[in-house]
Amino acid sequence: MKMKYIDLKNEDHFKIYGSIALEDEGYRRLLKEDRDKIREFNKDVAYLATNSSGIQARFKTNSAKINIKVVIDSVANMNHMSALGQCGLDLYVYNQSFNEYVFHNSTVYNSKLTEYEYDLGRFETNEDKELILNLPLYMGAKQIEVGIEDDAYLVPNYVRNEERIVIYGTSITQGGCVSRPGMLHTNVISRWMDCEIFNYGFSGSAFCEKELAEAIARVENPDLFIIDAQANAGVDDRLEKNLKLFIETYKVYHPNVPIIIASRIHFAVDLYNKEKIKKRKYYERWLKKVVKDYQQQGENIYFLDGSKVFKKHFTEMTVDGIHPNDLGSMEMAKYYYKKIREVLDTNNKNKEL
Amino acid sequence: MKMKYIDLKNEDHFKIYGSIALEDEGYRRLLKEDRDKIREFNKDVAYLATNSSGIQARFKTNSAKINIKVVIDSVANMNHMSALGQCGLDLYVYNQSFNEYVFHNSTVYNSKLTEYEYDLGRFETNEDKELILNLPLYMGAKQIEVGIEDDAYLVPNYVRNEERIVIYGTSITQGGCVSRPGMLHTNVISRWMDCEIFNYGFSGSAFCEKELAEAIARVENPDLFIIDAQANAGVDDRLEKNLKLFIETYKVYHPNVPIIIASRIHFAVDLYNKEKIKKRKYYERWLKKVVKDYQQQGENIYFLDGSKVFKKHFTEMTVDGIHPNDLGSMEMAKYYYKKIREVLDTNNKNKEL
Repeated sequence: MKMKYIDLKNEDHFKIYGSIALEDEGYRRLLKEDRDKIREFNKDVAYLATNSSGIQARFKTNSAKINIKVVIDSVANMNHMSALGQCGLDLYVYNQSFNEYVFHNSTVYNSKLTEYEYDLGRFETNEDKELILNLPLYMGAKQIEVGIEDDAYLVPNYVRNEERIVIYGTSITQGGCVSRPGMLHTNVISRWMDCEIFNYGFSGSAFCEKELAEAIARVENPDLFIIDAQANAGVDDRLEKNLKLFIETYKVYHPNVPIIIASRIHFAVDLYNKEKIKKRKYYERWLKKVVKDYQQQGENIYFLDGSKVFKKHFTEMTVDGIHPNDLGSMEMAKYYYKKIREVLDTNNKNKEL
Repeated sequence: MKMKYIDLKNEDHFKIYGSIALEDEGYRRLLKEDRDKIREFNKDVAYLATNSSGIQARFKTNSAKINIKVVIDSVANMNHMSALGQCGLDLYVYNQSFNEYVFHNSTVYNSKLTEYEYDLGRFETNEDKELILNLPLYMGAKQIEVGIEDDAYLVPNYVRNEERIVIYGTSITQGGCVSRPGMLHTNVISRWMDCEIFNYGFSGSAFCEKELAEAIARVENPDLFIIDAQANAGVDDRLEKNLKLFIETYKVYHPNVPIIIASRIHFAVDLYNKEKIKKRKYYERWLKKVVKDYQQQGENIYFLDGSKVFKKHFTEMTVDGIHPNDLGSMEMAKYYYKKIREVLDTNNKNKEL
């Protein structure tokens, strides 16, 4: 069967979620002009914002076979994420009988390459399919084309729920160290809620600078902003120094948007690393107090208690004592989903009153 | 602090579980003489038996720092397992208050190397510790040394439960595609039961040849034998052709050992690949019948229903539509553990009667 290829940026065929920078080259999370500014004080974030974590394409097609051609920025180079987890894509399809998006296939590509083709969709019928293509987590995607059968149609598809969520955080937010992009907790939640989530996780670099709040505030009409930065900004005094200005800066642009502040999840190091335990406890208390103070001023700011996320066998939830594996990521998805739904429902109710 | 290094094969200091081939070079799962024989009809198994999947060292020490020096056979080269998952080691420590072994740390080493050192144990006190070191899953380990503080002691440690389990199977049994060796379901079960498990998972190569039954039968005094080969031998007619002779051959050596025959887990391909679905259904029925026939002859052979292992969101349980991620591996551990306990308890009761 002859295949025809369509660029993923072609709006006649694809709807892309999770990026405000689609007019720049490639699939980036922040605008080039903002990345250039950010580079002056945090070059890691400027780089990491070129990684496509949380960016998804949604489309409908009746093609049985779906190929993709991908050009990524560089060669896979992580030690505790596979090439698939770092640079791969995966495909989900809406399943009527389960009433949810189900995982279909992932790009187990040759990890030495920066350009690859993959027969990602291996359906065997020409039924209509609603699909989500998840982009790489710890790598930038320069160019992506989707190939379908020559006589098939391919049109954009849309989230069923218009709520837009923005999350700012660390390597954990960015998806370290899941096995494929669909396992990133924000991608899981995006499927369950069937809504758009903008992922601003920046590995090792979430220090709550006010310029980041400005760059992230460019996401228009957000319904919820989540700040999950303790694992980075809370290793020293930057969380305490920066958080309030970060929040105030964000609120200049979106004064009424509810905010969830998360304390960090517990993991293996919390059983032995005294320094980390001390810092964690200090900031758990401090974050709770920050939220309480805001609430007493009538602000709709909420606390997500990271210490409650992992329950039984909590040390098993990470790859290296810090970064969630797929087990930990799924536990995060469940807990965060519940809290997000609760806050959004409370706010919707308040709006109606 | 000066460190002293001890070879992991030194029986005065370490007890190694999961290998019958410790007198051969390195850490191998089958004897060299058997691997040489097997090479003539299944060279993949001959190679894969040099991978150290499921092999563990148990020891006690009061050293706060524990370093390891590792020499592996070759460079990490998988696309859907990280270097850590393929070639890394991880360390568990018995935790009194949780009353279980908890994950401590893993070797996030430079994936371009075949020799590396790693500061794996980062305890901060000189308390006595009971430790499990899990060896690489998809790589052979040539040499391993453990470094402890110069004035610390280090002695072998032992399983609390003498039951010995032997499992034969596919890539899934071998640990594809978990994030680190401790997440392999047989290693999880070995911690929960605190017993020895011999892992004979051979990626893509579990075809139930009778010579394999002979090689595996060298494990003395087994309490349970599990056959989990459908995902390989069941892709064509080899399961049907070979299974009964495989079982009969094993029973020549261990006539009274209970056997569990598992049908394969369900995964994403079971939603669309008609050929795979057909084969799966055929062999599910066939395996059930094989077990039933044996039971009617009074044999203690049991069926583990792989279709029941993954429940909600079952497509999320794999990395690539076939191989369990850490989420899927943990679900397997739970389900297999329950079945194993049930069969062993039934057999212990029958022995008492």
